[in-house]
Amino acid sequence: MLARDPPMAARIERARGAAGGRPLMSAEPATVTWLTGLAPDIEWGPSPFSAPPVVVLDPGGSTLLVASEDDAGAAPEDVETRTYPGFAVEDVDRGSLVAGLVLEAVAGAREIACDLAGLPGQVVAALLHDGVELVDVSLELRAARAVKDGDEIEAIRAAVRIADAGHAAARDVLAADRTELELWTQTRAAMEAAAGQRLPVLADFVTGERTADVGGPPTARRLRQGDLLLVDLVPRLGGYWADSCATVALGEPPPAAREAHVAALAALERALELVRPGAKAGEIDTVARKTSPGYPHHTGHGIGTTSHEEPRIIPGSDRVLEPGMVIALEPGAYGDGWGVRVERVAVVTEDGYDVLSGHDLSLT
Amino acid sequence: MLARDPPMAARIERARGAAGGRPLMSAEPATVTWLTGLAPDIEWGPSPFSAPPVVVLDPGGSTLLVASEDDAGAAPEDVETRTYPGFAVEDVDRGSLVAGLVLEAVAGAREIACDLAGLPGQVVAALLHDGVELVDVSLELRAARAVKDGDEIEAIRAAVRIADAGHAAARDVLAADRTELELWTQTRAAMEAAAGQRLPVLADFVTGERTADVGGPPTARRLRQGDLLLVDLVPRLGGYWADSCATVALGEPPPAAREAHVAALAALERALELVRPGAKAGEIDTVARKTSPGYPHHTGHGIGTTSHEEPRIIPGSDRVLEPGMVIALEPGAYGDGWGVRVERVAVVTEDGYDVLSGHDLSLT
Repeated sequence: MLARDPPMAARIERARGAAGGRPLMSAEPATVTWLTGLAPDIEWGPSPFSAPPVVVLDPGGSTLLVASEDDAGAAPEDVETRTYPGFAVEDVDRGSLVAGLVLEAVAGAREIACDLAGLPGQVVAALLHDGVELVDVSLELRAARAVKDGDEIEAIRAAVRIADAGHAAARDVLAADRTELELWTQTRAAMEAAAGQRLPVLADFVTGERTADVGGPPTARRLRQGDLLLVDLVPRLGGYWADSCATVALGEPPPAAREAHVAALAALERALELVRPGAKAGEIDTVARKTSPGYPHHTGHGIGTTSHEEPRIIPGSDRVLEPGMVIALEPGAYGDGWGVRVERVAVVTEDGYDVLSGHDLSLT
Repeated sequence: MLARDPPMAARIERARGAAGGRPLMSAEPATVTWLTGLAPDIEWGPSPFSAPPVVVLDPGGSTLLVASEDDAGAAPEDVETRTYPGFAVEDVDRGSLVAGLVLEAVAGAREIACDLAGLPGQVVAALLHDGVELVDVSLELRAARAVKDGDEIEAIRAAVRIADAGHAAARDVLAADRTELELWTQTRAAMEAAAGQRLPVLADFVTGERTADVGGPPTARRLRQGDLLLVDLVPRLGGYWADSCATVALGEPPPAAREAHVAALAALERALELVRPGAKAGEIDTVARKTSPGYPHHTGHGIGTTSHEEPRIIPGSDRVLEPGMVIALEPGAYGDGWGVRVERVAVVTEDGYDVLSGHDLSLT
């Protein structure tokens, strides 16, 4: 749960701008968290006892959360909620109840701004039937979410600390004859212990020749001396995501990997040095790729209530950095049977950047 | 990945029945898995590099999967797929690409059966704009999914074995001064080691007085002698869910809990004895509640491509069991500062039932 006032007011203003004077409606977890502080359960897919929470933002700036009684309990106290039964013995048509509550909240509106893709189909159908115009403002919301408020930066900082704890553990338990899954278990356990709770965690956890694949989940593969571990940890804490990558060698890595790791670190450093208000994403990307030419993926991206958002740091991009943006930079290099990647999260300040990540990036 | 032929043909027939001669369209993970064998990633919410996979079933019985290039790779080879870019450097409007592919697949249809709630909003809007009637057959699909084919029963059996491994580990590591999260880590690790992969796992993992709350996630609470551990493990393997609960005492449990546990076991046994084709869900529920009167939740439910589905075993239900249904029965009892629950998964056979669960249900 976040401290919502006054910081929440700033992003509600940005959301109102994205909505262009219309009511705003969204069931995207990223938007719901951004505007209410509620982090919906996501780890086990659609729940039989709830529907995805929906946020409705009145053009005047008041927010309403429509959620099951169980989910609403996790929302900040000052968020107005309308609820329907959660875990219940009897059969409940939650889809109809959600639609009814949401439609009631926007009754009379002729145009509604929304994250169209994720809205409940019943709501879309009912509104269109009534001649209401649905304006998909997903791109505008994504742009509005790119600049973080102070409480959001603190939330990301807290999530990054969790990732740091995971990296420390991964480095600590790295040993021959252990499986990727065994190392992963200890890595995730360290993050969950640091958080005092279960966490959603997206992760690349690959070793040996699998590092050439850029990423992938942990398997039963056993480590051998000379293997690389490429570990990219993306935990969500309190609705905000971290992102962090390091590459660690068990013993002596392939010589080409050692050279590439030096170049990747240099690329990260040179990219970071460019981070300031007014910098263009494409220029940062260019410098990073010149320094470490061997990676087929983006150089970086924003993080917040999603793990990959604006501003994306990619070739040719004219996106301009602004104070309050939080970006992850992650140059790498991938060769024949090996891969390395290093990553730092930084917040754009008034005159440069602050690095939030604290994990060890050394290869050996 | 499942063996899909000929078993898949049987449920495609049931899906065609639910669709009533119309094309069928769904983005619900449960329906997508059921009709294609693909288990969409669900553990970290919406992906920035894909949209939820969509299945389209032609009235003739041919299935089409619309998924990102990354997701489609995990689908069985004989499923026809249409794809759009997954992990990519450049900006991609995946929502529009998905909508285009899906709409192309149903071009010309005047009525489409669907899981309305989860369809992409763009698809709903475009179809309604063209005057196509969308018929929500979610309830019919849920009913059709209740009877499992042989390959589905084997998939559930495999998932239940994973849950069994988790229970064995939880019992094994139960000790004073360890936290719920520490025990949980070892429990999940045992399941993931048995599966050789990461797994989505919904779980209740509560100890001591928290067992009175029926369920909840693991926390940093430390166990003490005399505590109960109530552990309900719900892992997904290959798209199919298991469900399993046990209650274990560390040392000597509260006397009332011991008595209640005997009653809960008896309720489970008496409920199971009634399982056969033709049995009514409500009658099974009544017998279980008479034997163990102290629980506020359902007596049981189906499992399959969701963790809680038809047939629900609840008071007053006229649902009739049929061969091939797979149900979890989980009577319990909850008192002042303690709670117990026991659970078995059983498949309805031609003349009774087979129990799939193998985990230890003893209290001490």
